[in-house]
Parts: sequence; C-alpha cells; structure tokens
Amino acid sequence: MAEAVVTVDGWSALHDTRQFDWTSWKLISKEERQAAIDEFQQLISKWEAVEEEKQGSHGVYKVVGNKADFMFIFLRESFEELEQIKTEINKTKLGDFLIPGYSYVSIIEMTMHDPMKAGEDRELSPYVKDRLKPIMPKWEHACFYPMARRRDPGANWFEIEKEERTKLLYEHGMTGRKYAGKVKEIITGSIGLDEWEWGVTLFAHDPLQFKKIVYEMRFDEVTTKYAEFGDFIVGNFLEKEELSIQLSI
Amino acid sequence: MAEAVVTVDGWSALHDTRQFDWTSWKLISKEERQAAIDEFQQLISKWEAVEEEKQGSHGVYKVVGNKADFMFIFLRESFEELEQIKTEINKTKLGDFLIPGYSYVSIIEMTMHDPMKAGEDRELSPYVKDRLKPIMPKWEHACFYPMARRRDPGANWFEIEKEERTKLLYEHGMTGRKYAGKVKEIITGSIGLDEWEWGVTLFAHDPLQFKKIVYEMRFDEVTTKYAEFGDFIVGNFLEKEELSIQLSI
Amino acid sequence: MAEAVVTVDGWSALHDTRQFDWTSWKLISKEERQAAIDEFQQLISKWEAVEEEKQGSHGVYKVVGNKADFMFIFLRESFEELEQIKTEINKTKLGDFLIPGYSYVSIIEMTMHDPMKAGEDRELSPYVKDRLKPIMPKWEHACFYPMARRRDPGANWFEIEKEERTKLLYEHGMTGRKYAGKVKEIITGSIGLDEWEWGVTLFAHDPLQFKKIVYEMRFDEVTTKYAEFGDFIVGNFLEKEELSIQLSI
Amino acid sequence: MAEAVVTVDGWSALHDTRQFDWTSWKLISKEERQAAIDEFQQLISKWEAVEEEKQGSHGVYKVVGNKADFMFIFLRESFEELEQIKTEINKTKLGDFLIPGYSYVSIIEMTMHDPMKAGEDRELSPYVKDRLKPIMPKWEHACFYPMARRRDPGANWFEIEKEERTKLLYEHGMTGRKYAGKVKEIITGSIGLDEWEWGVTLFAHDPLQFKKIVYEMRFDEVTTKYAEFGDFIVGNFLEKEELSIQLSI
Amino acid sequence: MAEAVVTVDGWSALHDTRQFDWTSWKLISKEERQAAIDEFQQLISKWEAVEEEKQGSHGVYKVVGNKADFMFIFLRESFEELEQIKTEINKTKLGDFLIPGYSYVSIIEMTMHDPMKAGEDRELSPYVKDRLKPIMPKWEHACFYPMARRRDPGANWFEIEKEERTKLLYEHGMTGRKYAGKVKEIITGSIGLDEWEWGVTLFAHDPLQFKKIVYEMRFDEVTTKYAEFGDFIVGNFLEKEELSIQLSI
Repeated sequence: MAEAVVTVDGWSALHDTRQFDWTSWKLISKEERQAAIDEFQQLISKWEAVEEEKQGSHGVYKVVGNKADFMFIFLRESFEELEQIKTEINKTKLGDFLIPGYSYVSIIEMTMHDPMKAGEDRELSPYVKDRLKPIMPKWEHACFYPMARRRDPGANWFEIEKEERTKLLYEHGMTGRKYAGKVKEIITGSIGLDEWEWGVTLFAHDPLQFKKIVYEMRFDEVTTKYAEFGDFIVGNFLEKEELSIQLSI
Repeated sequence: MAEAVVTVDGWSALHDTRQFDWTSWKLISKEERQAAIDEFQQLISKWEAVEEEKQGSHGVYKVVGNKADFMFIFLRESFEELEQIKTEINKTKLGDFLIPGYSYVSIIEMTMHDPMKAGEDRELSPYVKDRLKPIMPKWEHACFYPMARRRDPGANWFEIEKEERTKLLYEHGMTGRKYAGKVKEIITGSIGLDEWEWGVTLFAHDPLQFKKIVYEMRFDEVTTKYAEFGDFIVGNFLEKEELSIQLSI
Repeated sequence: MAEAVVTVDGWSALHDTRQFDWTSWKLISKEERQAAIDEFQQLISKWEAVEEEKQGSHGVYKVVGNKADFMFIFLRESFEELEQIKTEINKTKLGDFLIPGYSYVSIIEMTMHDPMKAGEDRELSPYVKDRLKPIMPKWEHACFYPMARRRDPGANWFEIEKEERTKLLYEHGMTGRKYAGKVKEIITGSIGLDEWEWGVTLFAHDPLQFKKIVYEMRFDEVTTKYAEFGDFIVGNFLEKEELSIQLSI
Repeated sequence: MAEAVVTVDGWSALHDTRQFDWTSWKLISKEERQAAIDEFQQLISKWEAVEEEKQGSHGVYKVVGNKADFMFIFLRESFEELEQIKTEINKTKLGDFLIPGYSYVSIIEMTMHDPMKAGEDRELSPYVKDRLKPIMPKWEHACFYPMARRRDPGANWFEIEKEERTKLLYEHGMTGRKYAGKVKEIITGSIGLDEWEWGVTLFAHDPLQFKKIVYEMRFDEVTTKYAEFGDFIVGNFLEKEELSIQLSI
Repeated sequence: MAEAVVTVDGWSALHDTRQFDWTSWKLISKEERQAAIDEFQQLISKWEAVEEEKQGSHGVYKVVGNKADFMFIFLRESFEELEQIKTEINKTKLGDFLIPGYSYVSIIEMTMHDPMKAGEDRELSPYVKDRLKPIMPKWEHACFYPMARRRDPGANWFEIEKEERTKLLYEHGMTGRKYAGKVKEIITGSIGLDEWEWGVTLFAHDPLQFKKIVYEMRFDEVTTKYAEFGDFIVGNFLEKEELSIQLSI
C-alpha cells in the first residue's frame, strides 16, 4: 500500500456555468433589463468588497462556444458561503435568465512537501498561504477542466510509491515552469466532493497558451500514463462595467 | 466460486435531489409562497415526529453547486413509505418548484461478521441495531456517492476469497477509524435496487474532511484495485426554521 | 465458433416508465382530474379483461425514487398490441400527465434445453407454456433491469462452449432456487430489439429480497466473469382502485 | 497495414425518429388536426411518387416503446434531398408535433468483391444495382441499429488481413442466409458521416426473427470478437391510410 | 519521455450547431419572419466583409439528420471575436429560434516540421500562412468530427518516439493525398480548449467522399492503433440568398 501525501488546504472553490436565456430576456422591458443589470452589478460589487478584504476571490467569464454563456469562479472560506452565493445569484432578477449548467465543487490544495524542494514543510511559508488563499489574476482568459489519476492494472497512480509520484510531479512542474508569466494555475482537490479527483483552473493573456501548456504536459509521464481528463471550458474575462454592453439588445 | 458474505439489513434509504424553480417561484404571490413554506414545514414536522419515535430518520441539505438545490435523505422501514414520501413532497405546493433530479434507492447493510472482530455475530448486538436503524447526525454537511467493486480480469472483487475480502475491508475500516469524531458514515447496499452496488453517506462538521477521508482511503488496496465511484454530491444541513429564509426573495 | 442455443419464445414485453407531471395536474379542475382517472381505470379494466382471457398480462407500479413515477409492464402476443397500448395510454387524458421515460422492449424466452435437466425438450411441456405466457404475480414489489454478457478477450460468453455455458447457467439457476417463494422472475430476450441482451423482471413481497438474490448471484461465475448490468428500477404494486388515492391532491 | 476493401455505394439514407407531442395535439381543434393529417398524407404521396419512379424509397414506422413514436426511413440519391425531406417535415403543420429525436445518416454500401463469390466484380451486376438502390419491402416490422468494428489490441478489425476479413464476413453471410424469406437487410456505411461505422436496417413479418437472427449472428466470430453495437429501435409499418386512425383522439 | 512536436498555430475556430425552433417560428407574423431573415442576412454580410479582408472566414451549413438544423463554422483571429459572434447571433431576432446545440472550440494548427519533407521549417512559408489562416472553400458539403489519440498501455501515442509519430503521420498524409481535389481538410488543435484533442473539418463536392476518405484512413496504422473518434456531423452549404427559402413556410 502506497503512502498518501499530506495536503495543505485553502479556500473552497465553486465553478458555476450558466446558459443565458436570451429569448426571455428580450421579452421584458428595457427598464426591467436595466434594473436587473444594476442589481447584479451591486452583487458583483459585494464580491469585490470580499476580495478587497482578502476574504475570497472571484471571476466572471464569457464562455466561448455553446457549453455555457457565463462561467463564474468563486473562492471562499467555507461551503456555506459557496452555497449562499449560488442562491443569491438565483434570487436576483438576472438569475431568472441565468439557467444553471455544469458546476464543480473543490478545495484549493497543495501537497505538504514541495516536490521541487525535498524535505521542506510548506505550511508556514507566506508564499504557500498566498497560494492557498489566492486572489485570482484578472487576465483575459480562463480555462477549467477536471481530471483524475488512473487506477488501472499496470498504471495505478495510487499504487506507486510516494517517491516515484513526487518525481513524476516534479517533472510535470518543470514543464509548467516554462510557462511562467504566460499561464497561471490553481489546483483544487475534489476527491469526495465532485465527479473527478482534481480541478485545474488556468489563466492566460492568450488562449493559445492553454493549448500549448496542456499539449506539452500531455507528454509528461505523469499525464501519458496516469491522467484522465474531463471536459474543458474556456472563457473571456468580463469586467463588471462590461455587463450592460454584453446584455444590451 | 467465492463465498458471498451474509449481510444484516436495516432501514431503506432514499436520497432525493431537487432543482428549485426560482423563476416560477418569483411569479406567485408572497402569500402563496408563505403558504407553500408553511405547508412544507408541517411536512417536515411529520418527518420529525417519525424520527422522535425512532421509526425513521431524515435530513434536508442545501446542495453546493448546480447538480441540485436540495438533497433530501430519508431512512424508513419500508419501500412503501419511501414512495409515499416522494409522492407527498410532489403533492405539496412547494413540490411544484422542486423539480425531481438524481435519486438513489438502497438499504442500510452491514456484513454479519465484523471484519474488526473475527467470529463475532453482529445480529443481536444493540450497537448493530443502532447502526441498522440510525438517527442521522444533524451535522453541518453531508456527502453522498454510489460505488461498485470491479469485476475485471485480474481485479475481480467477487472472485477473491472471503478471507482476503475481509482483510482488505478491515484495513479500509482502520483508515476510517482515524476520522472518528470528524466523519460519520452510513453504508447502504443497492445491488438489485439502483445503478451502483453500494451507497455511501458521509456526515462532517467540516467538508474538508470529506476530501481527506476519501483521498486517504483511495490508497487502501480495496479502493486502489477494486473500487469504481459514481458522482459525489455535497450539501449543507438545512434547519426546518431556516426554510423561509432560504426561499425568501 | 460456439453453438447458439435454441430458444423457445413467448409473449412480447414492454416495460414503460412515466414521470407524472404534478404541476400541470394541479392546474386542471377536480372534475377533469376525476374524469381522467375514471377513463384510465377503464383502460386498466380492459387490460384486466385481456389477462382474464389469458391473452396477456400487465402490472402497474409506483416507482421508488425519481427515475420515474410509474412503471407499466405489459405482456402481449404481438408487437402490434404493445405499440397500441402505448398509444392508447398517450391518447387518454391522464396520458397528458404521464411523460414518457425509459422503456424496454423484449420477448420472453427460455432455452430449449433445461440446464437443470439435460436432454429434455421444453417445447411441449405445459409448465413451459405457462412460463412463456405467464400471468404476472400481483406481488407487492417489482424490479426490472437489463443485462448483457461480455465479449471481452478472455471473458467472451459467446466463445465458450455450449456445455460450459449450460453448466454455468445451471449453477446460476441453483442460486435462484434458494429464493423460491420469495422471488419470482421473468427472463426476456432483447438482442435485436433493445439496448441490452436480456431483461430481468423480478417480483417479491419484500424488496430486500431483490438485493439478496442479485447480491448472491453476483458471486456466480456466470455473473462474476461474464455479466454487465444496466440500471435497476424498483416499484411498488398499484391496485387499480388505488389510482385515485395516488393521484388525489 | 491491412488493405481497405473497395466499396460500391448506392442511395443515401436517413433514419429519422420523432416523439409525438400528444398533449399539444389534443389542444388544437378537430379541423386543424384533420388539415394537418391531410397535408402530411399529401407529403407521403409525394414520397410514394418518388418511389414509383425508382428515385428513392421510404418507410414510416410506429415505434414500440418510448424511444420514439415514429421512425421514418428515407433512401435518396443525394444528401440535398435528405436535408430537404427533414425540413419539409418540419415545415408541415404535423411537424409541430413531431419532435425530432435520434437520427442516423449513412450511405448504402456493398464491398466490391462478393465474399460469397471470390474474384467476381459486383459493380455491373443488375442484382447489385437493385441492392444499391433498393425499394424497401413493406413488411410489417423494421429494426434499425448502428454498429462498429473493434480496434482493440488483439481484436483489431482494421489490422487483420483482407482475406481473413472476407472469410469472417462469408461465414456471417451464411448465418444470414438461413433467414432468407424471414428477414431482409440493408447495410449502410456511416464512417465519416455519423457516430458508428455501419447501420443495419432489418425487415421482418415477425419481430421475433429480429431477435433470432441477431442472437444467432452474435456467435459468428466476426461479431463475437469484433463487433460493438449501438441501440436498437423497432417499429411497426404504418400505411399512409392508417395515419388518421393512429392520430385520432 | 517522448518529445512534443512544436506546432505553428493560426486562426481560432468555433463550430456552432443550432436546432431551429420551427413551432415558434410559425407563430410569429410573416413580417416578423421577414425582418428576422433580413437582419440575419445583414449579419452574414458582415461576416462576408471580414472574409473579403482576409480577417477571418465562415460557412453556414444545413445539417442532415436531427443532430442540428444549422452548423456555423467561424475562423477568427481571437477568442474575443468568437465569443462576440456567438453573442451577436443570440441577440438577433432569428437567434430566438436558433437553439444552441453542440459546439467545438479549437485553433488551427500544423506541426512545425512537415512530415512529408524532413527538416524543413514551416513557419515562414506563404503556403503555410495560407493554411493557418485559410478562407474555407464554399464546397457543397462539410463534415466535422473531433478525435483523440489513445494513451493505452501498448498503444500510447504520447509515449512513442517523435520519429515514429512522424512516419505514421506521413503515411496518413499519403492516404489523404489520394483525395486531392475531392476533399479539403482543416485540422484544428483543441487540447486545453475542448473535449477532444483535435478537430477535423472536411469539405467535399460529394458527401460520399467523406465516407471514402475516413474509411480508407481507418486502415492507416496511426488510426487503427491510436485514434478515438467523437461524433460526426455533416451539412450542406447554405448560400446567404438561400436563407429566406430555407426558412419560408
């Protein structure tokens, strides 16, 4: 039996996608539409206040393609807050047009021992605290996908030794480092919380970098032999001020 | 041919998730909404009376993410009662807004012989009776997921000897014991009743413990080699009194 | 190439599940609801007349959980009748509220040679005729699931010799016999007709017996190595007279 | 690398299933219903004229079970015609009640060299022309299913030699010949056109023959080792004149 | 660890399928329908202007079968433009009837080193620029499908050496060259962007060629051993002028 690594865990995460009901939106009056937008912008302002106080972080994205129209990403201290945010969105007037779609529930996690630096404990480092409770970059694009590690005969991630797992993750991390400044990532754990084992949220100025980093990483042994991927969803960052333009008709 | 273990079986279980139709809910009058909430709270009171008489148990949860808005868990003596409860919910006014989603039907089960204590018969122990007909803890969070054991060549749970199965489950139980006081669990059997072979319902004060226990258990040989998992759903406990706040607009 | 067994075939079967549209049901008047129930009870009476003349059999079940609200099981001489019954249900007033869900089309089948009694031809036996054109027991609970046999390298049901298949099915039958009086079953073949290869319909007074028999059979080599299962659906028997209570609001 | 066989190709095929919206159908007036039926029967008459001129063929089926209510099968010279037919159905009044469901797009194909007669070229034979542009039999029942050949290690259809493939298909054909007069079949290729690699459309006077032929063929090595099947859908032939009875309420 | 090839990347691509809501379309007035068509044709004219300036390309297709009624293909410089186009469609009046369906997000890619010509760098060639930012041919038919390469033990595309991968792709390309003049293709990469790893868009005058090329390529070792395919969707080219006929009732 291989040994489980100890994780240090940070904020809870909710990825919440919504289809926009354009047909119904066009049926209400211009005044009702404006009131709905104003109310929702106040809600975003509340989220911004939370972020300024470093009690959480959020991002709103316009999704490319028909999987969804919007993706909200929320980081919060507790599952209570994540549920309240969802319900608060649903209670707004705009919520009537934001049809719930795919979502993902997870918690930011890091392994206690940095695979890059053997033997060093992560918990007390301020760098680690920033990564466990991160303010998400307001970069132009975000990408989310869930993943799992295989438990197949001959390729069972949970059976190989911790040292081997650490080595493979170290190599994987080295591939990631090539993209410093181009791609930022947040890793969340979802074993026991949602359908896959981990969630990966990437941020980039150029969405081509999502393709490049995930493609290059596909050749890392940890991916080649052990990774399974869920669906990928990509969105463009939406500024609060942009909402009324996005929804104007 | 390996030998089947004898199970002792308890209450029947229904996990019933519902999407809340907020858009329609906002269309009815405040008085209608209050009447719907009052009626539903009386229904919950009926369930509470059943629980007080130890004829069953229940829990209502606010689901995190978009898989559902509510998860009801019911334990009852019979499938007749489980079907009646579902139908009773649907007949209420609030039921018009509780769109049926994923559900799971199973029966609480324990293996007759405790893998922790060889040779001891469970059936007559009062401890076992409490576990077969348990009052669910009113802890802050619940997690449900279904699972199965693999029947693959080289990893076929139903082909390995009972002693080996008992040993693997014993180790698994030892991992679980580390979480005493942090996580409670109810195991239900669903072979012949629903899509997977077992259901696992976990309770915790902190949802991080769901991630920690399921992650650590993933390294147990019984999981690593033999387990397949369905989807996970996590909710926050809803007090009866809280219902009107949760649904206020 | 292994030899196909010859089957003897009986009535055609339709398993037809329906979600009940409670929200719309509450919108029509009490008189309309009563008229819809009366009309549907007359339809059930027609089915009863068919059953009395031994031209077919049927059962109506209240489904536990949200997969459906009702499951109808019909046995008839022909596919023409099965299609007409579906259409007749849809044409009734109650049909407006019975939203079609999962269904299954198959034909009752037995292998010509009883695996319990080598060399005996089944076709002419009155016992066999009763099993090919059975009146379904009006027991309290029914369970339906479809299944297939694996065609994997090293576990290919359709490649092993007929004698071996007969032996494995004989053992399987012996497990089933332990449940005599507790569980009745109807096996239908659906190769060329629906998604899986066989359908299994079980009847019991106590639904726990569904779990016990399917669990115990999972250890039979024919299951352990060769079986794949679809979803399971369980319902409680509905008497014709009970319909107005079930649908009263 | 194994050699691809050369195919000769005939008419294009569209299998188009529809759910009938009975609830809305009952809401329109008797006159509107009659007008909708009359208009649709004229459309069927147009299809009949095409068939009489041997420019195409069609069949309309009442589907058994809830997968659909109707299945249309169209054979035409071009994809332009297939798209126009779909759109023409949607434009009719009856089209408002024919909710589009599962469909399948493919082209009738035969291998150039008859596996039954080595070395003979098929292209110029009048028999082959009839099979590439066939008028479908108006038999009582039709069955459609898509299928693919495995590309697994050790069971890779596209890696085995052409001679071996021809031999296996020859044996398969011999099984099929036993059903001459009972079952007719049309094979269509859908690689590059739809989800599976081939479509199989069977016709029979007795639907039991669908079960018998597909069951017996399951023991052919070409199936046992190499075939994967999609879902099966079975329907009863609908005469044009029968339409108003089928839709009368 | 095998070496990743360097790609050169071009325009971003959105494949956007829509179901047409004929029932609602018939409910609005003839004038409203005409206004909706006029407005949409102006939108298409905007896309045409972009294409004339070689800032992008597009195609509109009438889909065969019920998977969709329309497929739009857009090539643009940025993900911002792709999201805006989707939203612009949704904001039009016709957008109310164009129900969003399956979509696919990817970026045109070529490997830096032409597998046909070893050692030659592609980036600066004008031929390559034309292929990275191509004006799509206005041929009668288009076909789209996504695909991935296997990462199975014994058939792991990402583990084999770059030279071997180049050789296999060279052979594959040679098969493709046989279809010069009959089939054109655009390869897009979607690792990190959508569900599969690559998207393939084919164009042909005769849809039979889609079947022929994909069938023949299925025998190439790169496909036989390493390819997995998603669903295929085929459409007939729609001229802007044709839109009012297509939607006339």
